Amino acid sequence: MSKTPPLPRQADDFSGWYNDIVYRAELVDLSPVRGSFVLRPYGYALWENVQRHLDAMFKETGHENLYFPMLIPMSYFEREAKHVEGFAPELAVVTHAGGKELEEPYAIRPTSETLFGELYSKWVKSYRDLPLLYNQWCSVMRWELRTRPFLRTTEFLWQEGHTAHATAEEAVAETRQMIGVYARFARDFGALPVFVGEKTERERFAGAQMTLTIEAMMRDGRALQSGTSHFMGENFARAFDITFNDVNNQQAYANTTSWGLSTRFIGALIMAHGDDKGLIMPPRLAPYPVVLLPIYKSGDEAGKTGVLEAVGRIAAELRDRGVRYRVDDRDDLTPGRKFNEWEQKGVPFRIEVGQRDLEAGVATVVNRLTGEKTQVPLAEVASGMPARLDGFHDALYRRAEEFRDAHTYTAETMDELAEKVEQGFVWATHCGDPESERQIQELTKATVRCIPFEGPSAEGTTCIHTGRPSGYPRKVLFAKAY
Amino acid sequence: MSKTPPLPRQADDFSGWYNDIVYRAELVDLSPVRGSFVLRPYGYALWENVQRHLDAMFKETGHENLYFPMLIPMSYFEREAKHVEGFAPELAVVTHAGGKELEEPYAIRPTSETLFGELYSKWVKSYRDLPLLYNQWCSVMRWELRTRPFLRTTEFLWQEGHTAHATAEEAVAETRQMIGVYARFARDFGALPVFVGEKTERERFAGAQMTLTIEAMMRDGRALQSGTSHFMGENFARAFDITFNDVNNQQAYANTTSWGLSTRFIGALIMAHGDDKGLIMPPRLAPYPVVLLPIYKSGDEAGKTGVLEAVGRIAAELRDRGVRYRVDDRDDLTPGRKFNEWEQKGVPFRIEVGQRDLEAGVATVVNRLTGEKTQVPLAEVASGMPARLDGFHDALYRRAEEFRDAHTYTAETMDELAEKVEQGFVWATHCGDPESERQIQELTKATVRCIPFEGPSAEGTTCIHTGRPSGYPRKVLFAKAY
Repeated sequence: MSKTPPLPRQADDFSGWYNDIVYRAELVDLSPVRGSFVLRPYGYALWENVQRHLDAMFKETGHENLYFPMLIPMSYFEREAKHVEGFAPELAVVTHAGGKELEEPYAIRPTSETLFGELYSKWVKSYRDLPLLYNQWCSVMRWELRTRPFLRTTEFLWQEGHTAHATAEEAVAETRQMIGVYARFARDFGALPVFVGEKTERERFAGAQMTLTIEAMMRDGRALQSGTSHFMGENFARAFDITFNDVNNQQAYANTTSWGLSTRFIGALIMAHGDDKGLIMPPRLAPYPVVLLPIYKSGDEAGKTGVLEAVGRIAAELRDRGVRYRVDDRDDLTPGRKFNEWEQKGVPFRIEVGQRDLEAGVATVVNRLTGEKTQVPLAEVASGMPARLDGFHDALYRRAEEFRDAHTYTAETMDELAEKVEQGFVWATHCGDPESERQIQELTKATVRCIPFEGPSAEGTTCIHTGRPSGYPRKVLFAKAY
Repeated sequence: MSKTPPLPRQADDFSGWYNDIVYRAELVDLSPVRGSFVLRPYGYALWENVQRHLDAMFKETGHENLYFPMLIPMSYFEREAKHVEGFAPELAVVTHAGGKELEEPYAIRPTSETLFGELYSKWVKSYRDLPLLYNQWCSVMRWELRTRPFLRTTEFLWQEGHTAHATAEEAVAETRQMIGVYARFARDFGALPVFVGEKTERERFAGAQMTLTIEAMMRDGRALQSGTSHFMGENFARAFDITFNDVNNQQAYANTTSWGLSTRFIGALIMAHGDDKGLIMPPRLAPYPVVLLPIYKSGDEAGKTGVLEAVGRIAAELRDRGVRYRVDDRDDLTPGRKFNEWEQKGVPFRIEVGQRDLEAGVATVVNRLTGEKTQVPLAEVASGMPARLDGFHDALYRRAEEFRDAHTYTAETMDELAEKVEQGFVWATHCGDPESERQIQELTKATVRCIPFEGPSAEGTTCIHTGRPSGYPRKVLFAKAY
């Protein structure tokens, strides 16, 4: 068998590490469609778990799911000036269907504000019809030139929430609520600490009056925008005529929002948690947080039977406790090969049950994060697993938080900014001028990731670039971003 | 307020009834995309429930989910001769993307055998890699000219399972297993009795060697194909070079299958269960099988508080028992309007709690199927609901089965066939000649829905059309179909 070359070390070649591990861990495969990837079962299961937990959070906050067509008439994009500017260059266009050329071409949705706008104008007549609190899980298409699995792909999976409200205040509250949902989801399920804040005007969604974002730090110090929530004001309501009779029987425009989280989030999990050995899965989203490995000598049928029975008992107990697991009983691979595979795939706990273990009445539980091996009495393996998984989640979160805090700096000068953004995030004062942001990006490759809701005050400081007064009450967060 | 015209009666205008109820019950809405519909929350929730339960059955039978790109290079369709013939006329084609004309156009998937074939040829090398047991939930597009909500739409949601096996026997067993899963799902969740059988050569999936189907009867006596499972033999393996080294180290072609169930299934639920008052939802798939209606006099705040508290207690108990429900506390609608709305939407049980009920210590439970109103002690409303829902499911199934049995006939002559297919399904002997099938369709509009796995023997009988010997061991089932 030909030996696979080793995984690049993160410190040597982070990008190479990423591009290698997504295939080795069988998260994705190449497809014949430019920039689109097959999500293999191990990668798609992550997305299923994202869906399940995030969807429950949407429903708890009063949202319902529905499904809109994937095609959108091309003319719809032109109704909102900034929206068409932002999306027109990336559209994939259906010009023929059913053997004929279409009278009006359709775009495959890059996002669905326009089509929701059209239907909302029909559904909303009175203030009693508001708010509309809807979400859809679907795939979208943006024809990008440079693509990378999960991070930037021509087709990707996401959810897009679209809501309409009677007042701007309500719509702003919704926009904030949903970025809060994303931040909690990242923390409680992804073990991912994030900065929450507002985008500058330059970085706003095409057509929005306010864009909120969660920004996570990858292990190369770069930022990954992991979810966004947009307040549109009346922009789309005016473009699509979403009007209603208010409580005073006066006609008014609705205020709308949209918010989305995509398979990009999986890219964030990979790059925030992985190490030189491969992936490290956050247990609550892991396809299976536990893998069971029966170990026996080939030919020893009695030994094999005993080991498989013990593994079966642990598996049954795990199932009763609602712990997802997988039994790896493939007998064409050595235990060593299996160890490596599950280590690379980042399964939080590996439970090894061999004959010597059985004789001692224990199993060996191996922690993927610490490498620690613990002999655990057989009767306690399954019962102790939920607590172990919670502990793993907390430790993974702390590790990401400590890494982030150790790589978050403050800069007073452009030189400091340029130096520190090579290593992580940088707090600095900015005047708020988009042209200055552009120049800073040219000089340092860094952008303003957000004006965080919480962070150091900008009082008494001046812009790191223009020397003018700060445009915001707080310092902003600069970083190089994916 | 303008009065809505009454829903057409099923017996007078079944088609009008259907086209009316899908909008009135807010299952769907029109969209600006030809032949595509918006699935509104009440319609989409049905699909979410189909997904949840069917997906669990797929996983129990060893399948994993993944996700393939929605675009397929046009040239792929041409690799399997019958497949291209079947699907080419219905493709929607992307010719431009990212502002440029594409070198090779892509089709939006009408089904994904070809793309799975391409990847399977890469994933399968040895018999140890088999079987591959994968499924995806996605949307597909077939540019049909005549469309109707759920039944025939240019875009629709479905799942498509694609499996590859080492032997034809295994692949045939998988094909049969999955049609069995669909039949059980239809019965146990949709309360839908189905005939299970094989399609004739003329009605087979484009590229299949065997197509199995479940066929349900609608309340106008017509058939609706509600799920299909296909054995491809080596057809796609040869077209896409899915080969492997078998146990004897000989190269062999894999045998593949595919199987799918779509949002058409919702059309079957609507037309098999609905009545002149509107929908009747099978409880296990209903968005909410129970609606709670607090009833109080406007202005009587104390009365309102008492009623809402009682409703809140029942709701909390239902939640604890895992019963999905909705509280309709809108105070801008009269109780009468609400009754009509929930009746039309087919919610199995309506629980009315008014002040007089409260004083008597009861709630009124109204059964959508029978119209029966029962006074139930408040303490027993929630605890009795799971059994009531099971009873409702069973009664709904029996009603559909009795209707189907009462509308299933046997014909010995073409005249009898022509007469009886106007009322339902017809058993008759057929010689198996596709040209004869075509002529029968021309004469009667009926097609062979399937050669059922169970049914009357054809021994000693001759073809109803050609007089030749029967082509099958059993009589076949003729019907007019959606």
